[in-house]
Amino acid sequence: MTKQVVVLGGDGIGPEIMAEAVKVLNALALDIQLTEKLIGGAAIDAQAHPLPQDTLEAAQAADAILLGAVGGPKWDNNPMELRPEKGLLGIRKQLGLFANLRPAILYPQLASASSLKPEIVAGLDILIVRELTGGIYFGQPRGIRTNEQGEREGFNTYVYSESEIRRIGRAAFEAAQKRNKRLCSIDKSNVLEVTVLWKEVITELAKEYPEVELSHMLVDNAAMQLVRNPKQFDVLVTGNMFGDILSDEAAMLTGSIGMLPSASLNENNQGMYEPCHGSAPDIAGQGIANPLATILSAAMMLRYSLGDEASAQRIEAAVSKVLDQGLRTADIYNPQEAGTQKVGTAAMGDAVVAAL
Amino acid sequence: MTKQVVVLGGDGIGPEIMAEAVKVLNALALDIQLTEKLIGGAAIDAQAHPLPQDTLEAAQAADAILLGAVGGPKWDNNPMELRPEKGLLGIRKQLGLFANLRPAILYPQLASASSLKPEIVAGLDILIVRELTGGIYFGQPRGIRTNEQGEREGFNTYVYSESEIRRIGRAAFEAAQKRNKRLCSIDKSNVLEVTVLWKEVITELAKEYPEVELSHMLVDNAAMQLVRNPKQFDVLVTGNMFGDILSDEAAMLTGSIGMLPSASLNENNQGMYEPCHGSAPDIAGQGIANPLATILSAAMMLRYSLGDEASAQRIEAAVSKVLDQGLRTADIYNPQEAGTQKVGTAAMGDAVVAAL
Ligand SMILES: CC(C)[C@H](C(=O)O)[C@@H](O)C(=O)O
Ligand SMILES: CC(C)[C@H](C(=O)O)[C@@H](O)C(=O)O
Repeated sequence: MTKQVVVLGGDGIGPEIMAEAVKVLNALALDIQLTEKLIGGAAIDAQAHPLPQDTLEAAQAADAILLGAVGGPKWDNNPMELRPEKGLLGIRKQLGLFANLRPAILYPQLASASSLKPEIVAGLDILIVRELTGGIYFGQPRGIRTNEQGEREGFNTYVYSESEIRRIGRAAFEAAQKRNKRLCSIDKSNVLEVTVLWKEVITELAKEYPEVELSHMLVDNAAMQLVRNPKQFDVLVTGNMFGDILSDEAAMLTGSIGMLPSASLNENNQGMYEPCHGSAPDIAGQGIANPLATILSAAMMLRYSLGDEASAQRIEAAVSKVLDQGLRTADIYNPQEAGTQKVGTAAMGDAVVAAL
Repeated sequence: MTKQVVVLGGDGIGPEIMAEAVKVLNALALDIQLTEKLIGGAAIDAQAHPLPQDTLEAAQAADAILLGAVGGPKWDNNPMELRPEKGLLGIRKQLGLFANLRPAILYPQLASASSLKPEIVAGLDILIVRELTGGIYFGQPRGIRTNEQGEREGFNTYVYSESEIRRIGRAAFEAAQKRNKRLCSIDKSNVLEVTVLWKEVITELAKEYPEVELSHMLVDNAAMQLVRNPKQFDVLVTGNMFGDILSDEAAMLTGSIGMLPSASLNENNQGMYEPCHGSAPDIAGQGIANPLATILSAAMMLRYSLGDEASAQRIEAAVSKVLDQGLRTADIYNPQEAGTQKVGTAAMGDAVVAAL
């Protein structure tokens, strides 16, 4: 049966990098139907909503969603409900995409791009499992109100129920089982009650996964340890807010965030796949953005949601090959490195297709 | 008039490193009276409270407080109200120590200790200004309750009023004025309403400090940029939770968190001074901990709360001298570095005294 994939280019460099991922998927000539829809700022401009109804319905009906990126200065002063980010948060929530898998992998060909010493990051391969549909991102009550002293105060609620914690915990334990069987759960249980419950539920759950070694770390220490010795980690699991911060920090350890894909899955393994980087409005439209994270997101999509491991591996091998050939977009280009050549977005996409 | 300083050794390595700072202060023969009190786990054990009344009263009456560190596994399973951290949070709140100044400075003598490439961190000198008595650390309501579905949920409230934001904003603008006049305010204003207000109030405040260049950055991006290119920053200002995470990340960029002091000030410049590192229970009692961050905290105390810039500089010069002499505690010792020698806690303190 033909698989349905909704393609959301989004804003900034989103449409450009998406065009290359689509090129690669088409080149594989799989039984997949791609349907393009609007989200984020592009959807606000065209349909006055960051997540239009037709986009949501197509996404709900699809086997998987491939997303570029959303956001940009154009919409930064919009009211909260009319910001591009609300489209992203909306689709995550509406589809129940609670498990966000963010690998931070150092490509050996790009080792010199990291700001860390080679011996600290060589061979880095960690996975951050971030809860994506709860926590302070969605907690109620929230807003800006006038307090008893007559001044304005802003407030948000950081909340997790046992079942929300258990659900993401299972996803993390299962991911660890398939990897090096070590899971580190991140909390701030010395200050925040919500993470006291987090730690307790994850600890309980560990009994069901005796082959996985569970540890706990405070979020401030985790932010340090990622810099000091990131290879001590295998899988990390944490809530929405801490996961946002730590996954970006971890991604940057590789120095090549333009290479990192991510997956957001729900209970049915329906998923949304997107690069870890953002919409980079400063370089949008110039044809210089790196499409590889989006192309690798398409590979992840084939693997996790479309059950086509072989095609996923073909894409990943092709990406590795173009790196071996020395092709580099501006973000990963190092003039000191012999045998490399700077190329644009489309040329990089073409090279991957040629390498397939 | 004799200055009053309350000395709180605390837990783990706290008492050991504090003994060296006291040695240094005594060697200066200043008109300061030091009074030792208990806090944290030590206070729980001896007085059944992490912040006993006599400690609090002495601290309130003092010109300044010098703190080692609190916490340890012994008390980790205590109920929230009987954890060592509550002593620390209590003294911050009771004394109104809202402005936490956390410098991340790379000592040239210790450049090789960093996990980052030398060119990324050479000359690093940034200051994180963290709000310390508000935000999600103190927000109400909080706790663990049973929700409508009959399951437990943990919850905390992230809240800031305009005046709280303005107060820490002023401290940050003033710090930037004395430095390189660049201030970066960190928020998550694309998701959290409380930080929409934060950004708005800081932006308004900037009008009063025309000579300071203000920028804004999202917290996830800040976590990345600290790794990618920390020298782009001068002063960062942020709330309690983000400040906890980012200041630890920034401190670790130097590779020598055992060197970094911090100050927590209230409206009257009364302050508490403490090393950035924690109580390190794993090495407590072995006489190998690095006392320099605590000694440098004493220098900060002389500068900010006791009005004795000359003595502050004497201490800082002495610390620099012992580093030049090649003396290193285990945490900053690198066997590959010629001309260095591993020393213990007391020997390091003695060397600083000798160098005064
Ligand atoms: C754009 C923003 C709402 C989003 C988030 O904070 O989740 C992004 O930073 C991410 O990590 O996917
Ligand atoms: C011990 C803990 C409560 C404290 C904090 O989170 O503020 C510490 O991490 C710090 O940064 O001073």
